[in-house]
Amino acid sequence: MENTCANMSRFEIIQNRFEQIKSNKAFEIFVISVIVISALLIGAKTYPLPDSVHQLTTILDYFITVFFLIEISIRFIADKNKKRFFTSFWNCFDTLIVVISLVPIDNSEMAVIGRLIRVFRVLRMVSIIPELRILLTSLVKALPQLGYVMLLMFIIFYIYAAIGSTLFENINPVLWGDITISLLTLFRVMTFEDWTDVMYETMEVYPLSWVYYLTFIFLSAFAFLNMVIGIVVSVMEQEHAKARSEKYKEQGKVEPTLDDVQNELRIVKEMLQQHIQAQNKSS
Amino acid sequence: MENTCANMSRFEIIQNRFEQIKSNKAFEIFVISVIVISALLIGAKTYPLPDSVHQLTTILDYFITVFFLIEISIRFIADKNKKRFFTSFWNCFDTLIVVISLVPIDNSEMAVIGRLIRVFRVLRMVSIIPELRILLTSLVKALPQLGYVMLLMFIIFYIYAAIGSTLFENINPVLWGDITISLLTLFRVMTFEDWTDVMYETMEVYPLSWVYYLTFIFLSAFAFLNMVIGIVVSVMEQEHAKARSEKYKEQGKVEPTLDDVQNELRIVKEMLQQHIQAQNKSS
Amino acid sequence: MENTCANMSRFEIIQNRFEQIKSNKAFEIFVISVIVISALLIGAKTYPLPDSVHQLTTILDYFITVFFLIEISIRFIADKNKKRFFTSFWNCFDTLIVVISLVPIDNSEMAVIGRLIRVFRVLRMVSIIPELRILLTSLVKALPQLGYVMLLMFIIFYIYAAIGSTLFENINPVLWGDITISLLTLFRVMTFEDWTDVMYETMEVYPLSWVYYLTFIFLSAFAFLNMVIGIVVSVMEQEHAKARSEKYKEQGKVEPTLDDVQNELRIVKEMLQQHIQAQNKSS
Amino acid sequence: MENTCANMSRFEIIQNRFEQIKSNKAFEIFVISVIVISALLIGAKTYPLPDSVHQLTTILDYFITVFFLIEISIRFIADKNKKRFFTSFWNCFDTLIVVISLVPIDNSEMAVIGRLIRVFRVLRMVSIIPELRILLTSLVKALPQLGYVMLLMFIIFYIYAAIGSTLFENINPVLWGDITISLLTLFRVMTFEDWTDVMYETMEVYPLSWVYYLTFIFLSAFAFLNMVIGIVVSVMEQEHAKARSEKYKEQGKVEPTLDDVQNELRIVKEMLQQHIQAQNKSS
Repeated sequence: MENTCANMSRFEIIQNRFEQIKSNKAFEIFVISVIVISALLIGAKTYPLPDSVHQLTTILDYFITVFFLIEISIRFIADKNKKRFFTSFWNCFDTLIVVISLVPIDNSEMAVIGRLIRVFRVLRMVSIIPELRILLTSLVKALPQLGYVMLLMFIIFYIYAAIGSTLFENINPVLWGDITISLLTLFRVMTFEDWTDVMYETMEVYPLSWVYYLTFIFLSAFAFLNMVIGIVVSVMEQEHAKARSEKYKEQGKVEPTLDDVQNELRIVKEMLQQHIQAQNKSS
Repeated sequence: MENTCANMSRFEIIQNRFEQIKSNKAFEIFVISVIVISALLIGAKTYPLPDSVHQLTTILDYFITVFFLIEISIRFIADKNKKRFFTSFWNCFDTLIVVISLVPIDNSEMAVIGRLIRVFRVLRMVSIIPELRILLTSLVKALPQLGYVMLLMFIIFYIYAAIGSTLFENINPVLWGDITISLLTLFRVMTFEDWTDVMYETMEVYPLSWVYYLTFIFLSAFAFLNMVIGIVVSVMEQEHAKARSEKYKEQGKVEPTLDDVQNELRIVKEMLQQHIQAQNKSS
Repeated sequence: MENTCANMSRFEIIQNRFEQIKSNKAFEIFVISVIVISALLIGAKTYPLPDSVHQLTTILDYFITVFFLIEISIRFIADKNKKRFFTSFWNCFDTLIVVISLVPIDNSEMAVIGRLIRVFRVLRMVSIIPELRILLTSLVKALPQLGYVMLLMFIIFYIYAAIGSTLFENINPVLWGDITISLLTLFRVMTFEDWTDVMYETMEVYPLSWVYYLTFIFLSAFAFLNMVIGIVVSVMEQEHAKARSEKYKEQGKVEPTLDDVQNELRIVKEMLQQHIQAQNKSS
Repeated sequence: MENTCANMSRFEIIQNRFEQIKSNKAFEIFVISVIVISALLIGAKTYPLPDSVHQLTTILDYFITVFFLIEISIRFIADKNKKRFFTSFWNCFDTLIVVISLVPIDNSEMAVIGRLIRVFRVLRMVSIIPELRILLTSLVKALPQLGYVMLLMFIIFYIYAAIGSTLFENINPVLWGDITISLLTLFRVMTFEDWTDVMYETMEVYPLSWVYYLTFIFLSAFAFLNMVIGIVVSVMEQEHAKARSEKYKEQGKVEPTLDDVQNELRIVKEMLQQHIQAQNKSS
């Protein structure tokens, strides 16, 4: 019984030390440096390298994998609430990347997949820098707000793709073969990428098919514009609200509204009223 | 007389039951599912299908047509005011799509048209989901506000198209043959789609024709920008007004304005004034 | 003396009658119709026409020229202040178009110029519809505000064009021959029109020339963005100010500011202060 | 001792005279004219010139170099605080350009570099016109605010470039050879420049590679949009704040806030409260 207790306390000492390491600024900078090195390594591997350098990269790769494993372990042990650790999206994300890197890939076929998995280590940059994490979170949060606009846009795309692959399939099956290819072609038209080539081709058979393209461009541009404005409005409102509340927080106050002024004014009016009534009575 | 009355009441019972069906959440989800299936069916038909699957799609098509007919009938019967039913744009729209689907098309030539009509069934998604309906209505409402900007833009396009087809017709009749083709070419230039190819061709004959293209790009871009800003401003104002009024509605209040504060302040001032005068007199 | 006076009064009667004609709604619609017909005529002439129709267009052309002359005369006579008539930009503009149309052009070489001049009659649409006139005026007014941004943009363009025509002249004289051609090529790069073709060509000689293109794109995009924001901000502010002042004008009031509220509050405070002092003295 | 003193005062006289020259409006316009001439000269040299004109440009070049040297000397001497002179970025910038122009370049190989250096004299336009200087400073100031968005964007680019050069290297080494080439190709895809050609090529080997391009376009467009909104919001806020503070500065007042109104209202309330209490006591 005592033994367990001693163990516990020894574990707590380790936990506290690890927490100190984790919160250490130098440690954080070191972790970021390793991530940058791992990113540069990934970039370097896309160049033809002499054998000696190639061996170096393999060694560095092992070192980085081991370092990431140690780092995630430190963070896990340092956390007092083990269960809460995996409720954080970024902790799960980091752990997943580290664990997948550990899988030994020797098969030459799979080597490409192994390299691709290591690419995602660069994403650890996002999980380690709080500002980037906030930025990405705010990007993701803006998406559902736009759900219905995106649904409307998809319906427009789908209808036009169905019409396109029905009418133009025989003209150019590479562009209008089935509905998925047509959707891709329409996305191309939306980005104005050689859209006139696509149009001139179908106009030879259906001279009025410019109506199809022009209405599509107008509709999709309009819906897209609406989406962009939606994002702009919501982001600006957030920014403004944040800026204003911060300004008042600095002064240790709450932002006054016209409501507050009006309420206070009402109190003054009532006080005055009662005072006058009291005087009238007394006289 | 009594018979009619009994009929009436029986009809009313049906009407009430149908209204219950119509308002049923499960029924609504089922309708949406059928629309989604009909959309997938339209997409599936763009792929080469084996005969057995093809027969299945034909059966499904019949089922969907019948289902839509039943659904619209239920909605018509459930409506207490039959005349008002067709004053709603979306009811007319739904009925039209259902009625057109009923027209039997056997001729192989017309089969394509039949398929195209069925594509518009996907639009029923918009009519059944209130959020999409609101979105589309707000899009349509924003258009007339921009009427004059669009007219100005069309005048710019028309003048440039007239100049273009006068000067460049002999250089490339495919691009500048008549005024409608020129309008299309100018739209292409506006989207920056291979516009330099168009320009370099005419610059060989008229070396100064870059003036034509550059002024056109500046003018149309400027007018377009103005249109976009117009939409942004009007949409943002709507959004803000809506957000603010909702905030006050939640609290069961009307938004106070500086006007209200000023008025109340004036009342306080007058009360004070009268009080002072009264005291002065009494003393 | 009496004769002149009689003449004067007779002239005044004509003037008043013409003023009535000018202000007549039906007359205005008729003028707009003639402008639309003249626009359609210009469009029709770009198509190959049979001889009979061609003769009709010539007759219509004469009719329109004469009509415009009569219309401008009516407007000139109806105006009480003849000197002020030509201080208006739009009156001068209309007169100019009408006068130029009167110049007889028989030479076949000049026929094209004659047709081009008639194209500008479409611009009379802008001068006759007040809303379009306001729109165009506001567009023109926004330009000088952006003067310095445009100067900065031109300096960026000029420096890059000078560098481009110095370094790349021997690679492709068609694109980089002299500074004006280089400016055109850079405008093309700015619109992203086949800019990679331009870049890949020079990268074969100077492998680092992508730096030239990327920095140019970033700088010009950034300056352009600044210009767009400048327009947006100024237009939005105008719109807001207009909307607000209109709202108060409807109620026959001036917009209250926090200043007004503060001033009134100060008056109340002083009144109260004096009252208290008076009471203190009296007691 | 007296000699030095006399020298000093003589130097001070020169300094004052130079300061007058420097502040002279005519001198400033003359400097701007010389800069414009030097810019035109640079432009003229890109055209093939006859020998006589070429000699003229060489002479003009010498004159401009000498003039700039004199001008910077005047400005240096006119400045009372010599040390502070070089703390200004624009003074350093001007001096650097003038000094580099003085380096004699005779070697034909280096002649190109000599011409390039002279191009940067056009940038003196920015340093001499205060409005352009302010504009550029505000552009540069907006950049660090966007630091994290740009870092996020670079991470997205880097990950996609690493994936691209791993998977597509064998398909087209010109586009996906190593990570820097891939980054350039991705920038091209982001500008929609013939991006479908790039995609169709890889889709022949990996039919699902459209996922790679579409997700990249969405992510980079989204991050870019965020950056643009960031700039818009910060610039608009600055503009608004500036406009408002200027409006109040004109009237010699400080902008009142709701806070001020509330504070004053509180004072009135307290005054009233004390007055009532005093009266109650006295009665």
